[in-house]
Amino acid sequence: MKPYSQMTKAELETEQEHVLSLLTDARELHLKLDMSRGKPCKEQLDLSMEMLTDLASAKDCLAGETDVRNYGVLGGLPEARAYFAELLGTTPDCVFVGGNASLQLMYDLISKAVTHGLKNSPTPWKNRKTLRFLCPAPGYDRHFRITESFGFDMIPIAMTEHGPDMDYVEQWVKDPDVVGMWCCPKFSNPDGIVYDDETVRRIAALQTAAPDFALIWDNAYVIHEFDTEYREFPDILSLADAAGNRDMVYEFASTSKITFPGAGISCMASSPENIAYLTKLIGVQTIGFDKINQLRHVRFLQSKQHTLELMQKHAAILKPHFDVVLDALETEIAPLEIARWTKPKGGYFISLYAMPGTAKKTLSLCKEAGVTMTPAGATYPKGQDPFDSNIRIAPSVPSVEELREASRILCLCLRLTALDQLLKLT
Amino acid sequence: MKPYSQMTKAELETEQEHVLSLLTDARELHLKLDMSRGKPCKEQLDLSMEMLTDLASAKDCLAGETDVRNYGVLGGLPEARAYFAELLGTTPDCVFVGGNASLQLMYDLISKAVTHGLKNSPTPWKNRKTLRFLCPAPGYDRHFRITESFGFDMIPIAMTEHGPDMDYVEQWVKDPDVVGMWCCPKFSNPDGIVYDDETVRRIAALQTAAPDFALIWDNAYVIHEFDTEYREFPDILSLADAAGNRDMVYEFASTSKITFPGAGISCMASSPENIAYLTKLIGVQTIGFDKINQLRHVRFLQSKQHTLELMQKHAAILKPHFDVVLDALETEIAPLEIARWTKPKGGYFISLYAMPGTAKKTLSLCKEAGVTMTPAGATYPKGQDPFDSNIRIAPSVPSVEELREASRILCLCLRLTALDQLLKLT
Repeated sequence: MKPYSQMTKAELETEQEHVLSLLTDARELHLKLDMSRGKPCKEQLDLSMEMLTDLASAKDCLAGETDVRNYGVLGGLPEARAYFAELLGTTPDCVFVGGNASLQLMYDLISKAVTHGLKNSPTPWKNRKTLRFLCPAPGYDRHFRITESFGFDMIPIAMTEHGPDMDYVEQWVKDPDVVGMWCCPKFSNPDGIVYDDETVRRIAALQTAAPDFALIWDNAYVIHEFDTEYREFPDILSLADAAGNRDMVYEFASTSKITFPGAGISCMASSPENIAYLTKLIGVQTIGFDKINQLRHVRFLQSKQHTLELMQKHAAILKPHFDVVLDALETEIAPLEIARWTKPKGGYFISLYAMPGTAKKTLSLCKEAGVTMTPAGATYPKGQDPFDSNIRIAPSVPSVEELREASRILCLCLRLTALDQLLKLT
Repeated sequence: MKPYSQMTKAELETEQEHVLSLLTDARELHLKLDMSRGKPCKEQLDLSMEMLTDLASAKDCLAGETDVRNYGVLGGLPEARAYFAELLGTTPDCVFVGGNASLQLMYDLISKAVTHGLKNSPTPWKNRKTLRFLCPAPGYDRHFRITESFGFDMIPIAMTEHGPDMDYVEQWVKDPDVVGMWCCPKFSNPDGIVYDDETVRRIAALQTAAPDFALIWDNAYVIHEFDTEYREFPDILSLADAAGNRDMVYEFASTSKITFPGAGISCMASSPENIAYLTKLIGVQTIGFDKINQLRHVRFLQSKQHTLELMQKHAAILKPHFDVVLDALETEIAPLEIARWTKPKGGYFISLYAMPGTAKKTLSLCKEAGVTMTPAGATYPKGQDPFDSNIRIAPSVPSVEELREASRILCLCLRLTALDQLLKLT
């Protein structure tokens, strides 16, 4: 095979016919495969089953003198705060432990900024005429959906291999209407990029015009290496504090991809002053989050070291899933030079960049052939990929066998749309 | 003993000296008793321990084809929706099942009304100049704190033995700025009043000027009889629908006082159209609530009938707690005619009305003698009891022995403040 760009029109047409016939055969298999969801597979869930029964007696439910079955302890069990503090490299007084979803803690932060204001807000955000939010893109669709839902202007920021393009970020934050920024700093969704030290340093030192600028630091994959040794990541809270931005950062993490998605525990970390301010506001919303589940998690996960051992078991399950897809792309697509893709060392996604203008068409072909993928554009604010190029691949759930099939079909669809595109241009 | 009002000044002074000396003795016991918290006691928590281990294997975690350990099922497990529907006498399509706190569902409803608007809102509430909320009082302090936090004008509505004073309610809802009303219809907090059929009918048929009026129906004690047979309560949703108010009602319930407070499951029930509208908004905030805990609850609680059997065990534990306090009041206070109080058949509180102007002083004396009570005024909007009279007594947590001591001290404090008050007036 040679790069499509080097083919003559006739060669392209022959190839098109060939690929079309392979795809027609594939369609007749009536497959039903799903590479759309960044969630653990059953084998991974089975790793944490012991946790479900680790609190069995009334005595088990005591955390110090606190009976975790009853009301109270709004900020989270001290044991759970200490656990997350160790995971993030911060201190327990910076940590608030919530319920089963860090997304809810993020949404509620934004929601309360709108209705009540943050600690340093001159006025609640609802009283401001314009609200702008920086959105490194491609990024996590659920982040963008929050700021979209509240009607913010979303400013896309290009991602580089080092993290968000900081030259643009530093310019934009001089605008007083820019009140925050989404970040997924380690194994970013979907590109799997780990922000480098220089990027983290520049983010921590941002000179924002808005006094209540909220840097959302969604450390969803803080210990989620699957193809390399675990590497410490800088503690953004102390870096920001040292740079004079003590109240700027709101960091989030959860056990959704450590124990059970949807039945894990989550945390928000920020300056102790921010945590005190927000705890008071959250105290109007709830008497407290599920402490039984907090204690269950702490007893099972124990410590960062012990959790890293569990993460190696996750890695052993995940890596073959990624390898199948990457191998297929390498064999089937690389020689054709019609797409590029990331080779992540952690996280849950492979991010593929198809020939501009072909992502939507490719995924629609995939769907017709029984392979569901994250909708094209989902990784951009308002679901609009300006290049119609990015495709997010989530290889964790299907079996290795299914992934082999699904990848084969994805590659055929990539080839066909590229051929259509090239033939239109020739 | 005779009523204080019939005593001469000299008799009152002798009695004052006597009570003061008894209270001084009591103070020297250095007690530390707490009748402030409406929460189950340890013995009650122990009733549900089996639930903690009822999901032990991966197979146990299947609800139909859904692996409850993983993401998804935003509106709640069908099994959990059906369970709450039976409890409330409605249908599963009217039910959304949330996390561990119905309070959070209520807060989030109000918060989303403010930021996004409800289904029938002409505009989000944040765009309105004035927002008024009807607050039957005395009522639940955490309800009032939500509407206070969002800056609403809170309109107190007097409680009668039948429920809120409907003549006033019907007048007030003609004001288009009145956007909602708090109700705790069965064993109201703190009075233990069960709204009668006529009150429920009039509420269901309210002619509100606001098209997006939100009737909050916090059915926190829907099956919480402790001193009488369980009695069906009318289904407000079908009554409101029949009266042309299909979208007016938002009903809430939880298992906080059935299994574990703070680690139970909760629900919101409303018209299917409201549930669809709100589910879409909640889908921006979270991927879903804790389905493991939902399934654990459904497996343990099984059905309404089975839950009612559990509630009888709660009742057997709770009733003696209430009896001790009621007996003390009957013996020590009734003959003096200085206070009246409720004799609830369910719920968690005794509501006592001390001589006007003496509640704060009474509770401050209690505190000095080592007995903590809910702060005076807490049961009124903004913590302001216009009569300084209502005292909320929560007898569930202390032991029967402790309650005997605490009641004795409460009675002494009631007597002393009444004597002070009467002597000031003579």
